[in-house]
Amino acid sequence: MSTVRPHPDPEHDPRVKAVFDDIRATRNTAFVNAMWQHLAFDPDLLERTWAEVKRVMATPGTLDPLTRELVYLAVSIVNGCSYCVHSHTAAARAKGMTSAQHAEFLSIVALASKTNQLATALQVPVDPVFDLSAASEGCRP
Amino acid sequence: MSTVRPHPDPEHDPRVKAVFDDIRATRNTAFVNAMWQHLAFDPDLLERTWAEVKRVMATPGTLDPLTRELVYLAVSIVNGCSYCVHSHTAAARAKGMTSAQHAEFLSIVALASKTNQLATALQVPVDPVFDLSAASEGCRP
Amino acid sequence: MSTVRPHPDPEHDPRVKAVFDDIRATRNTAFVNAMWQHLAFDPDLLERTWAEVKRVMATPGTLDPLTRELVYLAVSIVNGCSYCVHSHTAAARAKGMTSAQHAEFLSIVALASKTNQLATALQVPVDPVFDLSAASEGCRP
Amino acid sequence: MSTVRPHPDPEHDPRVKAVFDDIRATRNTAFVNAMWQHLAFDPDLLERTWAEVKRVMATPGTLDPLTRELVYLAVSIVNGCSYCVHSHTAAARAKGMTSAQHAEFLSIVALASKTNQLATALQVPVDPVFDLSAASEGCRP
Amino acid sequence: MSTVRPHPDPEHDPRVKAVFDDIRATRNTAFVNAMWQHLAFDPDLLERTWAEVKRVMATPGTLDPLTRELVYLAVSIVNGCSYCVHSHTAAARAKGMTSAQHAEFLSIVALASKTNQLATALQVPVDPVFDLSAASEGCRP
Amino acid sequence: MSTVRPHPDPEHDPRVKAVFDDIRATRNTAFVNAMWQHLAFDPDLLERTWAEVKRVMATPGTLDPLTRELVYLAVSIVNGCSYCVHSHTAAARAKGMTSAQHAEFLSIVALASKTNQLATALQVPVDPVFDLSAASEGCRP
Repeated sequence: MSTVRPHPDPEHDPRVKAVFDDIRATRNTAFVNAMWQHLAFDPDLLERTWAEVKRVMATPGTLDPLTRELVYLAVSIVNGCSYCVHSHTAAARAKGMTSAQHAEFLSIVALASKTNQLATALQVPVDPVFDLSAASEGCRP
Repeated sequence: MSTVRPHPDPEHDPRVKAVFDDIRATRNTAFVNAMWQHLAFDPDLLERTWAEVKRVMATPGTLDPLTRELVYLAVSIVNGCSYCVHSHTAAARAKGMTSAQHAEFLSIVALASKTNQLATALQVPVDPVFDLSAASEGCRP
Repeated sequence: MSTVRPHPDPEHDPRVKAVFDDIRATRNTAFVNAMWQHLAFDPDLLERTWAEVKRVMATPGTLDPLTRELVYLAVSIVNGCSYCVHSHTAAARAKGMTSAQHAEFLSIVALASKTNQLATALQVPVDPVFDLSAASEGCRP
Repeated sequence: MSTVRPHPDPEHDPRVKAVFDDIRATRNTAFVNAMWQHLAFDPDLLERTWAEVKRVMATPGTLDPLTRELVYLAVSIVNGCSYCVHSHTAAARAKGMTSAQHAEFLSIVALASKTNQLATALQVPVDPVFDLSAASEGCRP
Repeated sequence: MSTVRPHPDPEHDPRVKAVFDDIRATRNTAFVNAMWQHLAFDPDLLERTWAEVKRVMATPGTLDPLTRELVYLAVSIVNGCSYCVHSHTAAARAKGMTSAQHAEFLSIVALASKTNQLATALQVPVDPVFDLSAASEGCRP
Repeated sequence: MSTVRPHPDPEHDPRVKAVFDDIRATRNTAFVNAMWQHLAFDPDLLERTWAEVKRVMATPGTLDPLTRELVYLAVSIVNGCSYCVHSHTAAARAKGMTSAQHAEFLSIVALASKTNQLATALQVPVDPVFDLSAASEGCRP
């Protein structure tokens, strides 16, 4: 079930076809997953979303590809996005995540959510040593 | 402001002192941050929380220390835990996170939250290729 | 799958029938969607929920009907409520939302979630100019 | 308190100065709020974030400016972003939101969150009539 | 800091005064906490919110008062509402919550958030035995 | 659909069998629900998760079993964990939750989420009387 009806032949639109071709070339696969099929209802939204995903996730940077996927997956889990949890778990495996790494990753996500709730429940005040913007606070002498 | 009153001398309790000593030894610092000072209102909760943090975050495993911190920090941001965002950004820096890595990390967290909302808003159905538990579904021939 | 079993004939209960009749009359349709069928397990909860929905969403006010639906839908997306995303996307269309408006709306929801995470990750202090309750703070001279 | 230290003179960097100048010109004010001061630690992140905010929020489109702000604000509330709630409540007022509209808006946000939780708690199945992608499901004859 | 400016004498409005009087009478205290002072910017919103809080929380029902507060507090923690965490922790104490109960409550909230993330990360399919609405599914023979 | 493939015979691993045996003995049933079947992909994660669930939920403490389940369920609803909402609603019923208690519980969860959003939207400052850690703040004379 989705809230937009995907077009039976989205690539009839040349803008959509260009994005799908770039997805296939970038990932070296013929498969274009459902997220892009659905975003294609609006070519502008499709183009902008893919351009950002390609830039952030497929351009070499200062973090290795698996670390990037794990950060993406962690965010997706906490946001409760079922589709994204599926697609980014698959992507993490494609980038080499082993079963042991998956379990270790899950232990961290679970622990972080646990301690997040404890810190919020206790309303722990931030240690002054963590403060990097002392000048912004306004209640110091 | 916190919801429990930290004890002026929490280490008068030998169970609390033992945990604080282990925190100082594990981290090689005299500093015990406010999270632990506040959890000390219940020695059992303190002991169990620290034991899990130490095991998951301070034991060598299959993910490197900075990757672990970035996963922890990503979860903390999405859960909106102000204290945890402060303490784990500091921890990531202590484990070598550069300013460029911080910015790249933030780009991933921001992008993931963006596409999470798009996938949820469109209710994109999960591609069958992502399904690893075909046998559990019950509606296949 | 649901966590309460809907009654096969919920309108055998006159309180349920009265609410369903009012839903049909207010919306000018014979269709009573599943949310109400399931809330009918408790007539009191059904009556109170419908009364509030009717008052807030179906009474003329200072915001036009489509704006109200878009606000409702934005909240439902971020809360990750699959049922509500479906029903309120349909409601927004029924109130005139075009495909272009849908895409523009999604761009705003996605951008807001992105900048929300950036502001939380950076723990940006609130500009004093935004403060409307200076007298409440207690640390001013 | 923030997790990055804002530069005392961020506009010494010409890329930052160019963005700040565009913010001042677009908004017709000398004020550059703290969000941008903090994002300036990474000029690339600053440029990209501002470009998207300007395009989505300051370009005429199919939704009026106040509706856009209310959608942005609704997302910010549910994501629990304190900074964003402040800045976008101020922005909504600047775009004409009256006190009566503010109260009506809050009633919708509050009601939506309430019914979101009810639908999630009851796990209400989506009515087939809301399904726009029947062909994607795979369980139909 | 708040996003509405509380009136210096909110009780000059007889509708506000009536609500504040009822809060004081119901709780047997002269103290009217800041939540109500701020909601008073719109007497209608104030009246409706207080009426619901009074009905749900202050009317004898099938759950005891402390259990109700703990449910309210659990929701407030997960929603990350700092104000609500403070006020409902205080309310739980006023209704008899001991320090040991507080710690046990926190252990449950922390554990639930942990296993919530694990179940979401693994996308565990719901056991058919938990299904109470078999007739709604449509894929059964 | 799940993101890990459950083993067709998870109990071939003696560590998994030991946990499953303990689940069956603790709950006095032959049924081991899908959560544990899926966690079994990593025996260490399975053992630690079950040990914590057993300790927190199945050991007599200061809160009665139904109250514990309602707190667990409230957290699961707000975290939007579909699997957990199903399993813990069933668990609450098994521990005696009546239909009237279920409705009252839902009213509290719904009201709390509503007022959480109002307090966040208004950014209500915390009343000083709720502050239990005055010494930590640093802005007082």
